[in-house]
Formats: sequence, structure tokens, C-alpha cells
Amino acid sequence: MTDKIKVVVCGALGKMGVETVRAVHNDGDLQLIGLMDVRGGVGDLGIDLGQGISLPVMTDLDQLLDLKPDVMIDFTAPASVYQNVATALGRGINCVVGTTGLSEAQLKQLEQIALDKGIGVAVIPNFAIGAVLMMKLAAEVACYLPDVEIIEMHHDQKLDSPSGTSIKTAELIAAARSRQPVRNDLAVEKVAGARGAELGGVSVHSVRLPGFIAHQEVIFGGVGQSLTIRHDSYDRKGFMPGVVMTVKKIVETQGLIYGLEKLL
Amino acid sequence: MTDKIKVVVCGALGKMGVETVRAVHNDGDLQLIGLMDVRGGVGDLGIDLGQGISLPVMTDLDQLLDLKPDVMIDFTAPASVYQNVATALGRGINCVVGTTGLSEAQLKQLEQIALDKGIGVAVIPNFAIGAVLMMKLAAEVACYLPDVEIIEMHHDQKLDSPSGTSIKTAELIAAARSRQPVRNDLAVEKVAGARGAELGGVSVHSVRLPGFIAHQEVIFGGVGQSLTIRHDSYDRKGFMPGVVMTVKKIVETQGLIYGLEKLL
Amino acid sequence: MTDKIKVVVCGALGKMGVETVRAVHNDGDLQLIGLMDVRGGVGDLGIDLGQGISLPVMTDLDQLLDLKPDVMIDFTAPASVYQNVATALGRGINCVVGTTGLSEAQLKQLEQIALDKGIGVAVIPNFAIGAVLMMKLAAEVACYLPDVEIIEMHHDQKLDSPSGTSIKTAELIAAARSRQPVRNDLAVEKVAGARGAELGGVSVHSVRLPGFIAHQEVIFGGVGQSLTIRHDSYDRKGFMPGVVMTVKKIVETQGLIYGLEKLL
Amino acid sequence: MTDKIKVVVCGALGKMGVETVRAVHNDGDLQLIGLMDVRGGVGDLGIDLGQGISLPVMTDLDQLLDLKPDVMIDFTAPASVYQNVATALGRGINCVVGTTGLSEAQLKQLEQIALDKGIGVAVIPNFAIGAVLMMKLAAEVACYLPDVEIIEMHHDQKLDSPSGTSIKTAELIAAARSRQPVRNDLAVEKVAGARGAELGGVSVHSVRLPGFIAHQEVIFGGVGQSLTIRHDSYDRKGFMPGVVMTVKKIVETQGLIYGLEKLL
Repeated sequence: MTDKIKVVVCGALGKMGVETVRAVHNDGDLQLIGLMDVRGGVGDLGIDLGQGISLPVMTDLDQLLDLKPDVMIDFTAPASVYQNVATALGRGINCVVGTTGLSEAQLKQLEQIALDKGIGVAVIPNFAIGAVLMMKLAAEVACYLPDVEIIEMHHDQKLDSPSGTSIKTAELIAAARSRQPVRNDLAVEKVAGARGAELGGVSVHSVRLPGFIAHQEVIFGGVGQSLTIRHDSYDRKGFMPGVVMTVKKIVETQGLIYGLEKLL
Repeated sequence: MTDKIKVVVCGALGKMGVETVRAVHNDGDLQLIGLMDVRGGVGDLGIDLGQGISLPVMTDLDQLLDLKPDVMIDFTAPASVYQNVATALGRGINCVVGTTGLSEAQLKQLEQIALDKGIGVAVIPNFAIGAVLMMKLAAEVACYLPDVEIIEMHHDQKLDSPSGTSIKTAELIAAARSRQPVRNDLAVEKVAGARGAELGGVSVHSVRLPGFIAHQEVIFGGVGQSLTIRHDSYDRKGFMPGVVMTVKKIVETQGLIYGLEKLL
Repeated sequence: MTDKIKVVVCGALGKMGVETVRAVHNDGDLQLIGLMDVRGGVGDLGIDLGQGISLPVMTDLDQLLDLKPDVMIDFTAPASVYQNVATALGRGINCVVGTTGLSEAQLKQLEQIALDKGIGVAVIPNFAIGAVLMMKLAAEVACYLPDVEIIEMHHDQKLDSPSGTSIKTAELIAAARSRQPVRNDLAVEKVAGARGAELGGVSVHSVRLPGFIAHQEVIFGGVGQSLTIRHDSYDRKGFMPGVVMTVKKIVETQGLIYGLEKLL
Repeated sequence: MTDKIKVVVCGALGKMGVETVRAVHNDGDLQLIGLMDVRGGVGDLGIDLGQGISLPVMTDLDQLLDLKPDVMIDFTAPASVYQNVATALGRGINCVVGTTGLSEAQLKQLEQIALDKGIGVAVIPNFAIGAVLMMKLAAEVACYLPDVEIIEMHHDQKLDSPSGTSIKTAELIAAARSRQPVRNDLAVEKVAGARGAELGGVSVHSVRLPGFIAHQEVIFGGVGQSLTIRHDSYDRKGFMPGVVMTVKKIVETQGLIYGLEKLL
């Protein structure tokens, strides 16, 4: 019998963190050994994992890493993610990162630390297998139908727009398509913003409304037809198979993995 | 037996014009007596109306109005519509206008001319009964679910954005809703335009792609749910019942009618 | 200051029951005084309502009604709902029923008991305000566009098809429309079931897939166009404003109220 | 300079036929040399191809084939397609077939004739590149998300259901998916047909409404998410790039090609 992979979760009290704690706890190959969250504190009773098991929530990263996990999962915040992950990698701990906000330069630096230590770091903008398939399919279609726009819809608590997934999708389309879409130079935007954000020749439109969770449509137009690929995330549970799969794969990886599609 | 309503069509060689010519010709209560289009010219053989009937296409407005029609239908261009309609109304001829681009001030002036002459002018941004119902329903829903955004999709030859229909819909929603939608002050648009055009507290997103015809979604969000009203125009034929109905009603009207919903 | 309305919940351990318990507990005008569920039992610790409050879960209806509530909410099962509600009404307790499965005859009997006792019973197939609006709008549109089909999509744990909401929507459309839709007698269903279930001249199609929650599209077709009204329920929380509103209104009602739209 | 490919069109007066005649006429590599349609006749003036060119519409197949075309395109009817194509292949003429209704056995026979003659026959249920991409993508996704249903929507003049494209899509999904979808044995269809037509474990739902043209959604469900691929055909023009491409490829082929995806 192989040993279980020891896992700690940073940002354990956030929405994704709580779901991740449960998923790790319930997976037979993983062992949850520590939690951290800046919202934790002295006397915190921790998260009830069911079956009478609960773990304290630490507030200090070094203390968490002293538990010697195989993998640290980070679902914290744009302001803290780089420092968290650089520290963990520096101490030889593989990382799985779901937090957004890392710059291109920071990704390169994290990759270098991981390579130096001979370990892996996975930065995954979207853990939903369906969303990753959507992006993959969109790149495929763009070879045949290069005229395309993206509409992404999220709950009104999502502060940033466009979403990370839509930016990633636009990048993949821009790289894949056979020709640039034809732009009509006579077009007039009578109210600023109507035609959306332009990302590499792809217009991206961001809808923010209560009720919504996370949804995206990639719409391709051609002579006499259109083709639409839509992904709907209804529940954070939909991300968990991707999180668990990434944890299991990162311990066998060296360097940076960016995007769940690299693991399909 | 009552006399038929005598109709002339301005912009008769455009896409909507051609369809209108056919619809007027085929309606038992209407008589098509003249056509005009700046694309016409000397020696033009005119439009074949089937059954061996064809009409010449004039290029001069005064010559067209000398035919003494009861109604002039205008499907021309933003640059010419005001002058055409003001001239026709000034000569005592009722007008049905499908051309976009009239300003608030111009609408008021046309209304005044019509009232002075005791005749009617109908300015109809959208002749599709389904689109008009969409707007009506949207205003109804806004009373209960005030958080709403609009996505409109048109073919890539449509130059202006947002569409006239989406602007109208946003106006109706703004007037109907019970409270202002809550805006998150912390929201950050990382790429300009992502959140669309703002019209009276309604975000409007304009998609322009080949293949599309004319489509609009009005999306309402609420706690745990969303409600969407969508209209798809697949064919200009869908506008013709509205055009013909408006022609028949305008001859019994004095002053301005703005929007097909006034005639439902 | 008026007294709070005393409420008991039957089926308190089901998915809707748990959500209802929370919503009643959190509403300032309501007082939750008792819970019942056949899945409860001796030694059951009850539901944790937060703030240190918890209530035992009874398994006997008479015991529950002995608490003398003003309103009983029933989210149990088709097999037990009639007996539960008849008993409660017979003891002079207003009822709010979210359980499906009551026959036309049973509804009449419950109405009679309520009228005899001078109290109210509300049977609400769908508590989502958006779904009720969808039905209302569908009936409106059917006056103008009588050709219509319904697609309803639910999670794969939903056993019955078509859904109660789709049946209700089809009934409302059949009652509202100006003319019967034209059926093509030459149509051939090559595989049985392709054209869906027929309900009063409306075809209803039921999709059952994991991931989905509760969704419905009502699609109207007309010459050259279509109009679609879609409702998406993402979370049971979306039903709670409707449940709470119904509880508050039923105490002022005599007889049967069927459908949330009667309360709008 | 290579010679142009000589083409004749059978069913030239049908909707697809007329569009095909124009597309062939306008392509620089093809030469339209003959037309046939059972609706033609003595004294028929033929189809006006613009630019002053028009061709007579024959009613006899042998006379048409005497023109010695390189390729015959067939858009006729289920009752005549087999005889037309078998005759043309027997005379050594490549065939491109858009007509539906050929049985498995007939396909095998046509393939044998083509192989015997050393020529090609392409039977293409759907010439829209977007629709073919939809089918290809659907098969890809089915490997990861095996729970799937299909909704296809067509105008109310389409007599058969389910559509040929939906049947083909279901076959491709059934062949591609990693596991059978889980069926709930307790499920109850209260009105027959609600759950659609079952094709190899895929439920297919057929909507028929005026206004619609040809549309299909393939909906995949998974834990907490769904993925939808939708194709909309707005205009027969959307099929023409596929028709022209197939004509050019069939002259270099021996035997049967079934489906446009074989040519991508």
C-alpha cells in the first residue's frame, strides 16, 4: 500500500476552501493534515469534517508548513497568493493554486523556484472539467470559424471583469484561429462599452447579476450559421474532481503546470 | 367597398424596402403606387412584383410625392430620413418610418408637423411583434426583479451599437422598475468595455457576428434564480405583419406614434 | 406590536424542509415552534438553527399539531401529503403545501375542509417568483403567438416527468391562446417520443441530467421569428421569499389558493 | 490551367437545389452544365442564373446524364434518390447526395457500384460545417461527460422527427462515450413522450415551430455543471461552402464517403 498524499489547505474558511477541505478529507488517496486562514484565530474551533473529526485553523503560514505536507492548496486572495506559494515552494512543498491574480512575471518566478527544488506547481484558473473542455473545443472551432465573441456571466459579488476563464479562452482562440476576424471600420459604438472588451481580436462581454453562479458562452458566427459552446457551473462541487486530480498529479511533476487542460 | 390605401416606398431597393414592396403589393387593402431609391436611375427597370407587374424606381422625392399617396413608408438611411419625412408630412402625407437615427428633437419636430397637418407619423424602431412583446414583458418583470442586463446580437454588417431595440428596452426597464439595481462600488473593469454600455442603470452588450440576423436577450437575476426573455428574428418577413398593420392604422391617427407596442 | 405567526414544518429533514426551517427561523414576523419528519426519531438531536437554537424533530403528526401552530408547512411526499393536510385543516390550522401529487378531487376536498373551518390552504406547485412570472408571461404571449412548445430540464434525481411547472404552464397557455396551433397531419415520428408529451396542444419535453437544478424554456414560434421565456432555478434559496410570503398571506385567507400567481 | 469540374444538379427547383445551382454557377472551379427536376417540363424557361445565363430544366435523368458531367448533385426526395444515384454511378458519374432516406443496405450497394467503377459517392446528411463540428465536439465531450441529451428544433414544415443530424449525433456519442449513462429505474413518464426518443442511450427531443430554421443543442450534464454545444442554421447559404467542397473532393475519391466530417 502506498502512503497517502499529505495535504494542507490555505484559505480554508473561504467558499472554495471549505469545499476543498471536504473533498480532500473524503478522498481515499489524500490525507488532510492542516488548515490555514487569516480569518482563523486563537480559540478557533476549526472546521467540522463530519465523523467527529475537526482540525484547527492556523493563521501562520510557517506553522502550517512545519506540518511537512506533500502538497499545499492555495485558495486565498490576489494580494497574498504569490508570497504563500513562493514560501511553500521554497520549502520544497508542491503547490496547487486556484487563487487568481498572479502576473506573468510571478508565474515565471514560481516556475523557477519549483524547477530549482525539483517539485511541481499547478496554477489552475478553472478547475471545472466542463469549462476546460469548453476552452479546448473553442480553440478547435476557431480554426474553421474565426469570427467569435465571448459572453461570461457571474454572480454580482464577482468584482473583476472580464473573468479569468474568458481571458484564457480569448487567448487560446487568438492563438488557434486561421485568420484574423474582419472588423468593420465604419462601426460606431454610440455608447462606450457596447462592443465589450477587446482581447486579441475577441470581444468579451461580462454580465454580473444576482442568482448567477459562473457561466460562459463562446459564440462563433459563419455564413448562414452560428455555433455556440456554453458552460454552466451550478455548484462549487463541480470543481472538486479537478482539484483532487491536480493534487494527485502535481506530486509527480516538476515545474509549472498552467491550466487543467494540461492534465487531460 | 372602401378605397384601398395608396402607398409609396422610399428606400425600395434596400433589404427591408424590397420585402416591404412585396408585402404591400400582396395585401388586399393596400395599393402600391410608387417606389423611390437613391440607387435607382434613368432606365431602371424597377422591381418585378410578380404577376407581370413592375414599377419604376424614382430617385426624386418630389416626383414620388406628386403621385399623391396616402402613406409614405421610409426605409432609407439615418442621413436622409428626417428630410424625407418632414417633406412628406409637410405635403399632408402620413408616414411610417422604419429607418433609425432620428433624434429626440427631430421626433418632436415631426410630431408638430403631423399635428399641424392633422395627419399621422409612426416611428417604429422594431416591427417584429415578438420583439415588441419582449419589451413589454421585460418592463413587467422589472417590477419584480430589478437587476437586469441586455445582450443583443446582430450580423456584422450592422454598424451601430447598441441596437435601437436594446436602447428602447433599457428605457422601458428603467421607467418600470421598483428600485435601482445595487451596484458594487468595488467592481473593477480590468479591460475597458467588459461590463458593456450603461443605459439608465442597465448594462447593454452588443455582439456582431456573421450569420446572425437580429437577436436579443433580456436577463433578469434574483436570489437563487434568473429569468430570460429572448427574441430571435430569423427573416425580414417577420417584420411585415407589423409594417402592414402600421400603415393601416396611421391613416386614422393624428400626431406621433412611437413604437409598435402603442398599436397592440 | 402584533404577535408572530406560529409555524410548524412537516418534512423538515428533506431538502426543501431544511431550507424552509432556516427561512422561517430568520423571518422577523414568523416563529418556528415545531418540526416533524418521518426520518426523525427518538434521541434525534434535531436541526441546528444557529445562534444556539435547536428544535427536536417529531415523527407524530398529532403531537406536532398539539403545539397549536397558526400555519403548517408541508414538504413531505405525494403519499402522505393529503392525509397530513386534511388532518391539520380539520384541526383548524392553516396550511401551506409545496408537496406535489394532490389530485383534482383531493384539492376540492381540502378546499371544502378549509372553507368549513374558515381558514386557508395554499397549494403552490412552484414557489419561485421567476417561475411564476414565466407562466404569467407565457399566457400573455400565447394570445399573439399560439404555436409553442416547452422544454423543462431537471437534475437526474427527479423521478417524474413532465414537471409540475411544465404541466401548469401548458394548461395556462391552452386556456389563453387565441387559436389552436396548426398540426401537420403528415408528420411522422420515426422514434416514439421524439415530439414529446402532448398536453392540451402543447408539446412538452423533459430533460433529466446530473448537474442541472430546475430550468424551463417556453418557446413560441411565428413567421420569421421566435420568442423564448426561460427560467433557471439555481438554488432552493430562490423559493424562500415565496414560501415566507405565502405563510403570511394564508392566515388572512379562507379556502384554497392554488399557485403563487394568485398572490402576486 | 486545369479544366473545370462539370456539374449537373438533380432536384434543381427545390429549395436546396436552387441554392446549389447558384453556388455551383458562382464557383470558379466548377461549371454548371445541366439541371433536372420532376417539376420541370416542356417549355420551362429554366432558372435564371443572372448575368443573362439561364439553363433549361430537364425532366429525364438519362437525358441529363448524356451531358457527361463529372459530378451529379442530388437534392431530390427519399423515394427517388436511390434510383437516381445508382443510375448515375452505373454510368461512371461521381455523385454528391444531400437527399435523406437511403437505408444502410442501399448505402452499401451504392458504395459497391462506386468501387466497381472506380469513382466516388458522397452521402452528406448535413453540409453545414458548424453542424459537423458540433457532432465532432459532442463525441469528444462524451468521453468525459457521458450523460447527455439532444434537443433539435426545426420549422413546422419538417415532417420527420428526430432529424437526421440528431440521429447521427446520438450514434457518434454512443460510440464515443466511456461509460453508459446511469438510468434511474424509478423514473415515471406521466405523459408518454415526455422523456423523448431514446437512441442508443441518448434522449432526443424534437421541437417543430414556425419561424425556426434548423437548430440543435447537445447538452451534457456532470456534477455541479453542464456543457452545451449548439448549432443554428439561419440560411441555406450556410450549406453551400460544404456542397462546393464536397464536389471538388469527390472527383478524387473512390468508394463511399458518409458525412462531411470525413472531409475535414
